[in-house]
Amino acid sequence: MSLVVVGTVAFDKISTPFGKSDKIVGGAATYIGLSASQFSNNVNLVSVIGDDFPEEFLAGMKQRNINLDGLQIRQGEKSFFWEGKYHYDMNSRDTLDTQLNVLADFKPVLPDAYKDCDFLMLGNLAPSVQLEVIEQIENRPKLIVLDTMNFWMDSAMDDLKNVIAKVDVIAINDEEARQLSGEYSLVKAARKILAMGPSFIVIKKGENGALLIDNNNMFFAPAMPLEDVMDPTGAGDTFAGGFIGYLANSRDISFENMKRAVIVGSAMASFTVEKFGTERLLNLTEVEIDERIQLFVDLVDFDILLVD
Amino acid sequence: MSLVVVGTVAFDKISTPFGKSDKIVGGAATYIGLSASQFSNNVNLVSVIGDDFPEEFLAGMKQRNINLDGLQIRQGEKSFFWEGKYHYDMNSRDTLDTQLNVLADFKPVLPDAYKDCDFLMLGNLAPSVQLEVIEQIENRPKLIVLDTMNFWMDSAMDDLKNVIAKVDVIAINDEEARQLSGEYSLVKAARKILAMGPSFIVIKKGENGALLIDNNNMFFAPAMPLEDVMDPTGAGDTFAGGFIGYLANSRDISFENMKRAVIVGSAMASFTVEKFGTERLLNLTEVEIDERIQLFVDLVDFDILLVD
Repeated sequence: MSLVVVGTVAFDKISTPFGKSDKIVGGAATYIGLSASQFSNNVNLVSVIGDDFPEEFLAGMKQRNINLDGLQIRQGEKSFFWEGKYHYDMNSRDTLDTQLNVLADFKPVLPDAYKDCDFLMLGNLAPSVQLEVIEQIENRPKLIVLDTMNFWMDSAMDDLKNVIAKVDVIAINDEEARQLSGEYSLVKAARKILAMGPSFIVIKKGENGALLIDNNNMFFAPAMPLEDVMDPTGAGDTFAGGFIGYLANSRDISFENMKRAVIVGSAMASFTVEKFGTERLLNLTEVEIDERIQLFVDLVDFDILLVD
Repeated sequence: MSLVVVGTVAFDKISTPFGKSDKIVGGAATYIGLSASQFSNNVNLVSVIGDDFPEEFLAGMKQRNINLDGLQIRQGEKSFFWEGKYHYDMNSRDTLDTQLNVLADFKPVLPDAYKDCDFLMLGNLAPSVQLEVIEQIENRPKLIVLDTMNFWMDSAMDDLKNVIAKVDVIAINDEEARQLSGEYSLVKAARKILAMGPSFIVIKKGENGALLIDNNNMFFAPAMPLEDVMDPTGAGDTFAGGFIGYLANSRDISFENMKRAVIVGSAMASFTVEKFGTERLLNLTEVEIDERIQLFVDLVDFDILLVD
């Protein structure tokens, strides 16, 4: 089924305790699209770049059946750029430079062919921009997934609540869930956030896994303990891409199937962090993905006889 | 099978973002013993207290078939006391007061009946004291489990390495595993620590679960997301008690059975944090334990068809 992905396509410059990158391709929609394209051959991107973006990278996305008709290319302008440095624990980072460039006045425009999409992934962007996308959709998609961050909670809470009310799944990290709900307990936080509109919440905990919660069920997926973590950038977006790509392909949005989608998303994210940027995602085989998913199956597998 | 538990029996005074306690009973061996006694009726304590310790608490331990023959009661002296304050994230805490009292010159003395125990749990204490216990054992136990902490890595690393070389299982938290090994990756850290002697390592991650690793296998158990977490004190010890109590009762130290023991330990720890001190552990039924274990089964249960 068709999947529309909205988010940034951009440049990153990253340093972590284990190395640093040059200016490389990044952006939420880039990671989401590449990850989703492993499961769906009907991925449609909405984003904006300048004329400085590498043509061969766009060609590579097209080769993966990612439709770029919704990607605006602005001549004479520059793509969004972010520079950041991760701390030793890799769970926190400092932003060293942000150049909005084409993103400053981004107006998403959905090609007509996108307007009756079945699945919609709203990558992290200003909530007002995410709203503009929803308003251009003609038939309510089967599933809308929202990613956002604390920055918008601090600066655009009204718009954000407006978006949250219109989506089916919200994906945020544990600190953001606490900030959004005012509750320390993630169980209570999830309940409050579900009351704002979504039917499902995914609480992303980075190297500590992810929780999927609806009003009746709770599921936990671990993160895979890895030999080497080089760069966490894009892990959350890769997760989201695997999650919605798997759902779009299997056409089943039951809690049972969402659990599988969370495992698939976690498996995909575990690849992204092994290298800087999109390098690992661009060099990934179906066999590797299946093997990684099997590692997740084994990691949490146990049988127990109750005591009495 | 017989289980000997060595550790502190003490007083704590605790404040957390959600409340505070008076001076209440705590201590590693207290939590370990109470937790293990849910699974084993052959728990034997080695510790030291002053004459200020509540008689009714000791009576309650005896009622649970915890043998206190190895508990030294020093007349005219005071029990160990610790006061601490947890930060908002509950993963870190400040020590406000430590009064060693009877612990300052504690010499563990194993009653003869303890000396051929089948299972030995070395709760967190000075490594030199843990060594003295091992030296008093007459026949090598089926399993020795070691708990320790970063304090001893900073102050008594040689003794600690000496103990580590003599045990089968080491249980430490993620930061301690990183400190002990000098490796950020927990996979690499585990490999280095296993090379120091133990056959198994349990890496405790608090609200983020626990990893069990040997040279061939890796298992992850989540922590249960809870409505209310009041006080994390004793959670790690409660985990250890459930872990070794379950193993001592089932007499099976295969990796498969250790996975079950990690789940049991996690279930027990999830009770301790719901109230201050030992309150929840003291009021716990077998039915509640079974129900909680079932929640763990459900929390990570999924089935997946691989993509190809």
